[in-house]
Amino acid sequence: MPIIVQKYGGTSVGTVERIQAVADRVVRAREDGNDVVVVVSAMGHTTDELLAMASEIAVAPDPRELDMLLTAGERIAMSLLGIAINARGCRAASYTGSQAGIMTDTQHGSARIVEIRPKRIFEALEGGSVVVLAGFQGLSLSQYEITTLGRGGSDLTAVAMASAIGAGVCEIYTDVTGVYTTDPRIEPRARKLDVVSYDEMLELAAAGANVLQSRSVEYARRTGVRLHVRSSFEDEVGTWIQEAEEPMEGVLISGVALDTDEAKVTLERVPDRPGVAATVFKAIADDAISIDMIVQNVSHAGATDLSFTAPRADLPRVHGVMERLVKEIGADSYTIDDDIAKLSLVGAGMKNHPGVAADMFDSLAGEGINIEMISTSPIRISCVIRAADGERAVRVVHGRFSLDESGSSPEIPTG
Amino acid sequence: MPIIVQKYGGTSVGTVERIQAVADRVVRAREDGNDVVVVVSAMGHTTDELLAMASEIAVAPDPRELDMLLTAGERIAMSLLGIAINARGCRAASYTGSQAGIMTDTQHGSARIVEIRPKRIFEALEGGSVVVLAGFQGLSLSQYEITTLGRGGSDLTAVAMASAIGAGVCEIYTDVTGVYTTDPRIEPRARKLDVVSYDEMLELAAAGANVLQSRSVEYARRTGVRLHVRSSFEDEVGTWIQEAEEPMEGVLISGVALDTDEAKVTLERVPDRPGVAATVFKAIADDAISIDMIVQNVSHAGATDLSFTAPRADLPRVHGVMERLVKEIGADSYTIDDDIAKLSLVGAGMKNHPGVAADMFDSLAGEGINIEMISTSPIRISCVIRAADGERAVRVVHGRFSLDESGSSPEIPTG
Repeated sequence: MPIIVQKYGGTSVGTVERIQAVADRVVRAREDGNDVVVVVSAMGHTTDELLAMASEIAVAPDPRELDMLLTAGERIAMSLLGIAINARGCRAASYTGSQAGIMTDTQHGSARIVEIRPKRIFEALEGGSVVVLAGFQGLSLSQYEITTLGRGGSDLTAVAMASAIGAGVCEIYTDVTGVYTTDPRIEPRARKLDVVSYDEMLELAAAGANVLQSRSVEYARRTGVRLHVRSSFEDEVGTWIQEAEEPMEGVLISGVALDTDEAKVTLERVPDRPGVAATVFKAIADDAISIDMIVQNVSHAGATDLSFTAPRADLPRVHGVMERLVKEIGADSYTIDDDIAKLSLVGAGMKNHPGVAADMFDSLAGEGINIEMISTSPIRISCVIRAADGERAVRVVHGRFSLDESGSSPEIPTG
Repeated sequence: MPIIVQKYGGTSVGTVERIQAVADRVVRAREDGNDVVVVVSAMGHTTDELLAMASEIAVAPDPRELDMLLTAGERIAMSLLGIAINARGCRAASYTGSQAGIMTDTQHGSARIVEIRPKRIFEALEGGSVVVLAGFQGLSLSQYEITTLGRGGSDLTAVAMASAIGAGVCEIYTDVTGVYTTDPRIEPRARKLDVVSYDEMLELAAAGANVLQSRSVEYARRTGVRLHVRSSFEDEVGTWIQEAEEPMEGVLISGVALDTDEAKVTLERVPDRPGVAATVFKAIADDAISIDMIVQNVSHAGATDLSFTAPRADLPRVHGVMERLVKEIGADSYTIDDDIAKLSLVGAGMKNHPGVAADMFDSLAGEGINIEMISTSPIRISCVIRAADGERAVRVVHGRFSLDESGSSPEIPTG
């Protein structure tokens, strides 16, 4: 019997009524002749509410205890869903991450999966049960302690379990109907994509698209699990995420993403000598600040400016690191600009079409939008622009590459 | 280092502020030089709220899933307490019933403890940690499924763990300051008892005193664990429950209990032939109705009336059983009277003083209170009376046996 893994996020199981609707969908998949494993997140805002209680008790809650606390959220959601499926006359049993053999390292709060031992899951499926599995959680291999996988970890649980039990597909149910060429709230003519490659989805996720957590896309790519992102409220087909097929004529760009959660950090007049960049970025990495774009201009009079983008949430730590670095490397000073947006164009086809970047810049220039930083990968071009220009920039680039036209993108002019 | 087990009920950990207060008390016990194991119930009404969601989803929720759901309640309470204790600079780690090796049978919702394997608890104590332990829950020995021990099961967890790890005392923290000669809300002159024997406490629990669950008292008696019932809001010494000492002169009666949750059921004109009573009570037991007093009068013209008391909550099932039984055994009919109260006098000393019963009946007669049923054990006398007479009856009997006078009860007249 084919195995399907379905993952439902917190919104999809946010109320008793929605849990009933999820149960209906699960039973339908079962009656269609599949073995079904359902991965659930905690209901609605449960995780935030538990976190709030912990923060009220302690400024820095003990990480082991915090993981013990947060895992109660998925436990509630999964057992309620188990009750709902059983009530429909379809046998179901729920399992915690620990029971399902999701073995991790010991990093509480952001544990990495090191092994899956799905013995009980196989037994349950062979016994004719639907399996309901708690997302986000695991058991540390060396200490048998309860761990959590970090925000968005339920996606990772679903992908990893799908890979471990050889599921044909991992369906990610969410509150949107799929992956779009851009955010439909900014550009109403955004078009749902039928298929995106793993690489494109990774670039879109890094560029600020919130549909899927990067770690789970990376895991899917490495293990070859096909993902199907779709809505838990509607029946229509969503977006498939899978290995890129042979490039088809004309299919070049998959989407435009806007990230407004970053800030631009600049170290001014950094001495231009070997080892300085290494010193800077090691200090940043040591503080677990995840930076994205890095730009260094040519040197004038033995010094250069060094800029990068970092999440605004990390700014308090960025300040600390920068103050130390200015003294250590002998730079003039540093500035932080949090009034920026990062606009990214992603598409597997662009690597063979050097004109794409020029065309993107031209469309922005035509609107009088200034580009402050640029970085590129083989399938992504990102520009830092003023925050106020963000949504207008999305619409002009989306239109220039004709992403709203149905079917595949047209051939790109190479001007 | 001596080991203390402390158990806190749902009211004691009902809010974040109360959890902070419990943490203070735990840290104090630790600083006094004890190894401490803290057993907690779910916060406030959490269990009822989880049950309500389950009932909204299904009329008869799957028992395995329901246990999975309910155990989330203790998980939240224990990890928050673990966070609070750690925040005070005192190392603490929380453990689920499963992690603590509380092994049970497979009866979901009312599992029995069959074995305790406290390996991780000993390791944690030896490592210098305070142990926070989830009450109410365990793991089935044969199937490794999560189970719960039934209402009040956290008391049982505390007593069983105290016995398994050789704790000198098991402190039961609650919202009253100890065990009283009767309910102080009925008789303000009720006196707190310093010591009660296991047997007396069992009779008091069976007679309707709600301080402690009978199963945990029974477990404590069998394993010799001393219990100390006390308030989590005040510091005063509470009531010790332990093996009866040699009877002291004059210490006869420990308390008066009133149970208003029962109804009287009477099968009328039951044929007086061998095996009828067995048929009746087997049918009742098969429906898991727990009955208390049983009275059968002498036979007249080959038939007799058979009465017993049963919890009002069980009345829907009682009706079903009685209707079947009337036909099966050829009785005339049955009646149910739910306007009664059960008044009980409990005291280890009364077994050597036959006058106690007569004195109790006399005091009730003096107030014009009619006695409808009587049953006795060596240390308890129970009477069924009209519900409306209940509180007056408590006060008159409490006064007659001078339970409100400080110190031990006086010699009982044998009149």
